[in-house]
Amino acid sequence: MAAPAGPAPAAMAANHVPLSPISFLRRAAEAYPGKVAVIHGEQRRSYAELFDRCRRLASALSLAGVGKGDTVAVMAPNGPELLEAHYGVPALGAVLNAINTRLDAASLARILDHGGAKILIADREWGNVVRAALAILSAPPRVIDIDDAAGAASPIGGMTYEALLATGDPAFACTSPEDENDPIALNYTSGTVGAPKGVLYSHRGAYLNAMGSALTFGLGPRSVYLWTLPMFHCNGWSFPWAVTAAGGTHVCLRKVEAATIYRLVAAHQVSHLCGAPVVLGMLARAPLSERGTFTHAVRIATGGAAPPSSVIEAMEQAGFSVTHLYGLAETYGPALTCAWQAEWDGLDLVARSRLMARQGVPLVTVEEAMVADPGTMLELPWDGLTLGEIMVRGNTIMTGYLKAPEATAQAFAGGWFHTGDLAVRHPDGYIEVKDRSKDIIISGGENISSLEVEEVLHRHPAVMEAAVVASPDDVWGETPCAFVALRSGEALEAEDIIAWCRANLARYKVPRRIVFGDLPRTATGKVQKGLLRDLAKASDA
Amino acid sequence: MAAPAGPAPAAMAANHVPLSPISFLRRAAEAYPGKVAVIHGEQRRSYAELFDRCRRLASALSLAGVGKGDTVAVMAPNGPELLEAHYGVPALGAVLNAINTRLDAASLARILDHGGAKILIADREWGNVVRAALAILSAPPRVIDIDDAAGAASPIGGMTYEALLATGDPAFACTSPEDENDPIALNYTSGTVGAPKGVLYSHRGAYLNAMGSALTFGLGPRSVYLWTLPMFHCNGWSFPWAVTAAGGTHVCLRKVEAATIYRLVAAHQVSHLCGAPVVLGMLARAPLSERGTFTHAVRIATGGAAPPSSVIEAMEQAGFSVTHLYGLAETYGPALTCAWQAEWDGLDLVARSRLMARQGVPLVTVEEAMVADPGTMLELPWDGLTLGEIMVRGNTIMTGYLKAPEATAQAFAGGWFHTGDLAVRHPDGYIEVKDRSKDIIISGGENISSLEVEEVLHRHPAVMEAAVVASPDDVWGETPCAFVALRSGEALEAEDIIAWCRANLARYKVPRRIVFGDLPRTATGKVQKGLLRDLAKASDA
Repeated sequence: MAAPAGPAPAAMAANHVPLSPISFLRRAAEAYPGKVAVIHGEQRRSYAELFDRCRRLASALSLAGVGKGDTVAVMAPNGPELLEAHYGVPALGAVLNAINTRLDAASLARILDHGGAKILIADREWGNVVRAALAILSAPPRVIDIDDAAGAASPIGGMTYEALLATGDPAFACTSPEDENDPIALNYTSGTVGAPKGVLYSHRGAYLNAMGSALTFGLGPRSVYLWTLPMFHCNGWSFPWAVTAAGGTHVCLRKVEAATIYRLVAAHQVSHLCGAPVVLGMLARAPLSERGTFTHAVRIATGGAAPPSSVIEAMEQAGFSVTHLYGLAETYGPALTCAWQAEWDGLDLVARSRLMARQGVPLVTVEEAMVADPGTMLELPWDGLTLGEIMVRGNTIMTGYLKAPEATAQAFAGGWFHTGDLAVRHPDGYIEVKDRSKDIIISGGENISSLEVEEVLHRHPAVMEAAVVASPDDVWGETPCAFVALRSGEALEAEDIIAWCRANLARYKVPRRIVFGDLPRTATGKVQKGLLRDLAKASDA
Repeated sequence: MAAPAGPAPAAMAANHVPLSPISFLRRAAEAYPGKVAVIHGEQRRSYAELFDRCRRLASALSLAGVGKGDTVAVMAPNGPELLEAHYGVPALGAVLNAINTRLDAASLARILDHGGAKILIADREWGNVVRAALAILSAPPRVIDIDDAAGAASPIGGMTYEALLATGDPAFACTSPEDENDPIALNYTSGTVGAPKGVLYSHRGAYLNAMGSALTFGLGPRSVYLWTLPMFHCNGWSFPWAVTAAGGTHVCLRKVEAATIYRLVAAHQVSHLCGAPVVLGMLARAPLSERGTFTHAVRIATGGAAPPSSVIEAMEQAGFSVTHLYGLAETYGPALTCAWQAEWDGLDLVARSRLMARQGVPLVTVEEAMVADPGTMLELPWDGLTLGEIMVRGNTIMTGYLKAPEATAQAFAGGWFHTGDLAVRHPDGYIEVKDRSKDIIISGGENISSLEVEEVLHRHPAVMEAAVVASPDDVWGETPCAFVALRSGEALEAEDIIAWCRANLARYKVPRRIVFGDLPRTATGKVQKGLLRDLAKASDA
């Protein structure tokens, strides 16, 4: 390799560089140029090639009129293109808006409009939704097609991603941002309730969160990371940047299917992956015939909800070691981690699962977390009983909500980010979520944690999934209403469920109504409680 | 544990906190309060206790009149006190000046005077030197005694460190600095040539270097770090902060002795340690009777000079895996790492050692490194041949030299830090030091790398250590002069050495003179080449 020759810019400081995860890629290409950076099906690309492609992307976007502060939207699976966009878009000072691939046309149009995307890079698999969204917009973005989907998906825009790259210059200078607080990404909240909000991340926050995640999850140059967690979900919890910082290998994945995951884990000696509990559940329930054989250590991080003990047990038996993380879009993904204590090693599964279900303690890059009274902002006792709101602060908290100064000010009231999650803090310092503020059920003046009722329902051997919401009640104000999906082949009556709850819960917490059927979920695996609340209300009327 | 209760400061930002390694300790005390943080002899202290003691130290120093920007000097072995000073001193905005314990009184006095220390915390083992230094100074600092040394070391100051801590408040607020670029530490260069310079580190640089070191060296909460590298040496390469960031355990060590190191590695399941090649050499040469038995993986990082292949081989046989790092006081210790490539796994020792002797590629937290012509600042070809100066830039480069704006400007000329080390860059991107600028020998217009000659001498089975410097020569300008220490029991003549060199080196590189005897070293294990040059000159006259 020949060295680039050219004088150093005069204004450059020897001892200060704005923090940006773009540095991780440049460095990986320097330290591990020939190493496999990205595996996608049969395709292998080295770090030198990845860096080359990202610079081409930045250059091509720049030639296409994208400038500093502009938004580039990407609607894509966990493939090379979205990974490259995590570097190529910010390398020219633009902002990456990775979009949930499960959105409907109206929601997509709203986000494209609100985020002001100048270009939309979209996989043809979602061509119909994209075309419908574009039709709604008065000033639609230019569309670049990702032509990766098997089958004859028809074109959306006038150019493919590969053709776009071909217009780019691989010698494009990937510069650090002038200000490390400049935006790097825009992520819309999953919108379980209300209109999605545009959460802004900064270069500084992304850099630090990636370093913290790499350290927390034990990433190193030998790590092989499987992309089960959507990259559009909080930028894949910063792992597009963290894996590269560690010099590890990314394994792409278009579709989350148990058999594929097991096959890739074995084939590529995958060492790390992340996923919502619903993904762990899928892996845990996969028939033995779908499981590849592997004997190496695999770490899986999960978040979004506590993994039920039955899932932890099944995952451990399948060869995975589970880490529980907690966070929100506003915290770049993980903010708390259920840090493992050496003295837990010897505990039995029930005891371990109870401890592992807790959201835990701050990540090393989070400055502080507390469970506080949101009215007084006073921290509450670490007694495992007193319910308060989780507040966090630090460099890995969003810059703010795009075009929503009031919502931003509200979220940051008192100098802390208000998570909206209700929790207790145990005497050992571990925070445990009891409910979302809006998910708490108030019955006869008593608070009922929907999570507590759900945990009891999950322990029933015939129950696959369950969600509990408030149902309006003339006498009690609210009562719990349970939505239950049974395991295949199981048949239960509402009375059976109620009897199980009576045996395991205080009387006032027992659901008054049981509705059987599949649970509606967001793209990231979160149960859509807003929808269930509407159903509970409607069926009540 | 009861939660601290109190309203959040109004001015606090939810999403921005100045970077400081102080955060690592607060976080470790929150995540791992009961875990053993520090082992010192029979003593064990938890992270909660360590945090408590550091806050007491900050509070006590504050009560003793130390304020923001003041210097607190510490002359101590690798014990709990110097570790605590890495948090307690900066926690009140003061600057830690950890002092080389091998200094003579005049050098110590010069540093105390130049650094302006208000307080000197000193171990009684060095009482005589300290007293002599104080006698030189017109305004000596107040002395606090560390009373840890076995035996009857007599008092120096009027108060012990433990008595000082007792005056402190464990509820002292460990605040982040207002500006993350504020100084955290002052380290004097080892001064192989000329007067020592005071190198300033910032909170931001220390935070980032610690994160980078933790990631590079694979530290995690199960890591046990043995303090073989002096903490006064570039703040122990940031490991007082890195090990704490990872939630690992520090094992203190007053004295670097092979038997003690082997005993502690086995007793505490030490997973990581660092040391100059001289320490590796000591471990490699230790008789089997001094080696404890251990079967777990131990990683040892070394720097300051390339480890000879014989040492690498012996270390591997003894159960250590060796990582080669490169850096200077001005780069917070490590700036380059000889990153291991998977394809090296299968190589034989000779091939591996040759690769591992190279200084390598930038650490993840270093922005850029290049081998350049210092005149033009143009990067030189990556051909493994063209000699240039190593230049680095990034956030882990010193703030500057204390009270030496001209030296600072010179070191940062052109926007890069000039290391003064001459190197080539191989086609694979690895940088290999050939010599210090001032250590190159120019003989008949040809550059001779003293390192190359030393490597040949080290390969001789009877040679324990060797150093080569320039000797003035009327005909050639300079010729190489070799200082050689033989293994015990070995007897060689100068002619034998010269014959060996003739067989292994170009004729003009063969030393003209051989001097037998022990090599003079600095406290950090560096050969004092300046002294050898003087000897070579003197014996020549």
